[in-house]
Amino acid sequence: MSTRNLDHDIALAHRLADAAGAAILPHFRAGIDVENKAASGFDPVTVADRAAETAMRSLIEAERPEDGILGEEFPLKPSANGWSWTLDPIDGTRGFIAGSPTWAVLIALTFEGQPVLGVIDQPHTGERFSGTRAEGRLLAAGREASLVTSTVDRLDRAILATTDPYLFEGELYARFSRIREAARLTRYGMDAYAYGLLAAGGVDLVIETGLGPHDIHALVPVVASAGGKITNWAGEADFSTGQLIAAATPSLHAEAMALLSD
Amino acid sequence: MSTRNLDHDIALAHRLADAAGAAILPHFRAGIDVENKAASGFDPVTVADRAAETAMRSLIEAERPEDGILGEEFPLKPSANGWSWTLDPIDGTRGFIAGSPTWAVLIALTFEGQPVLGVIDQPHTGERFSGTRAEGRLLAAGREASLVTSTVDRLDRAILATTDPYLFEGELYARFSRIREAARLTRYGMDAYAYGLLAAGGVDLVIETGLGPHDIHALVPVVASAGGKITNWAGEADFSTGQLIAAATPSLHAEAMALLSD
Repeated sequence: MSTRNLDHDIALAHRLADAAGAAILPHFRAGIDVENKAASGFDPVTVADRAAETAMRSLIEAERPEDGILGEEFPLKPSANGWSWTLDPIDGTRGFIAGSPTWAVLIALTFEGQPVLGVIDQPHTGERFSGTRAEGRLLAAGREASLVTSTVDRLDRAILATTDPYLFEGELYARFSRIREAARLTRYGMDAYAYGLLAAGGVDLVIETGLGPHDIHALVPVVASAGGKITNWAGEADFSTGQLIAAATPSLHAEAMALLSD
Repeated sequence: MSTRNLDHDIALAHRLADAAGAAILPHFRAGIDVENKAASGFDPVTVADRAAETAMRSLIEAERPEDGILGEEFPLKPSANGWSWTLDPIDGTRGFIAGSPTWAVLIALTFEGQPVLGVIDQPHTGERFSGTRAEGRLLAAGREASLVTSTVDRLDRAILATTDPYLFEGELYARFSRIREAARLTRYGMDAYAYGLLAAGGVDLVIETGLGPHDIHALVPVVASAGGKITNWAGEADFSTGQLIAAATPSLHAEAMALLSD
């Protein structure tokens, strides 16, 4: 790992995000001015998803032929060197088809399964959240800023976000409801974009379940680089459970974890 | 009413939106790079709200001295001619403080209490949804398109939106849940922006409660101009109930209404 210069990988990740955005944007809100979307005979989100992943895969295969690729739309390409890219061309497809601007392109580079850099890109608004082990950056409207989480360390002062409260089932719904009722306020519907806002200091806590590796890998370096704590619901870095808790501070993480596992 | 040229009022509404956006944007995400938001001693959303409403009021008082002004932040200015402006400088303040890009500036012109033109403006993304009795327009990134709702006429094919499902209380929560479970999918958290997406054909149905006149007046012409149906939960144009149902088609509106009032 020490022989690889991550600066070059960050530069490549930005090119991947550019390519994905260019492939997706012509399909975003493509339903506008189309008389009957169902009758038009194609699914814009699938077309955009595949076009974006194809564009990113081509770049990776040309520039990093030994790296693996774990993408949402095409078969796994195994890694020959321990390094692998995780790609989710459109995270938040439900938001995408509704026309909401909070879907995102997710790109991560992992080494032996652990994410070392991540990008959360929103091409419609032109916002790109990125993180490495060294630093987190927000690029928006040509301006760049450091990503730093808030200092909120108590649930009753925290802005909580989750995409859809009904994704928590049975006892988990009851536990999530306790956290929601204790939080200062709760926002819904943002998918991966919420983790970008957490890294930027707007949102203080994100709790979700039912996620796949495509959804998760890019989020981890973005949140961690900004000073946040992101783990599974057992407080560990094993994300195969599909359960995530990301908090602005360790204290807030601990308070929410206690209510989740109670 | 026939003696007033609404084209001039539309032009003024655009200038109001420009002024509000210029007043608000410096405060959006102002917490980024601030070490401790709570300790910084000011509430950016209140500062932005008041600055934007002041800017809009100055323009209206200079250009339409006889018109009334119903704003969220300052006392009512009664109308001397039956015409009045309804202003909500930041609809979706909770989204605003979380850093989400789905808050909006709401501007409406009413005649004897009925909205005749409306603007839903999102200055961060540069999107402006506007509607008159004649037409609806979406201005985004310098391009203009007609607003036309989708043709979705069945709940099981509909994308439903509401800001927060827990705003429905008691029996209303049960009724809303029935609609949510019958819909194709549900998106949360967008406040007034969801009505813009409905007018643009992305969202098919929006159901909300607990709204004030500031929240509602601008939405009505935007949705209606795009071909949508927007009423209170009794199917009427009396919006003092604070309850709204907006649908892409009359059939979808009727199907959802039946479940709401069942």
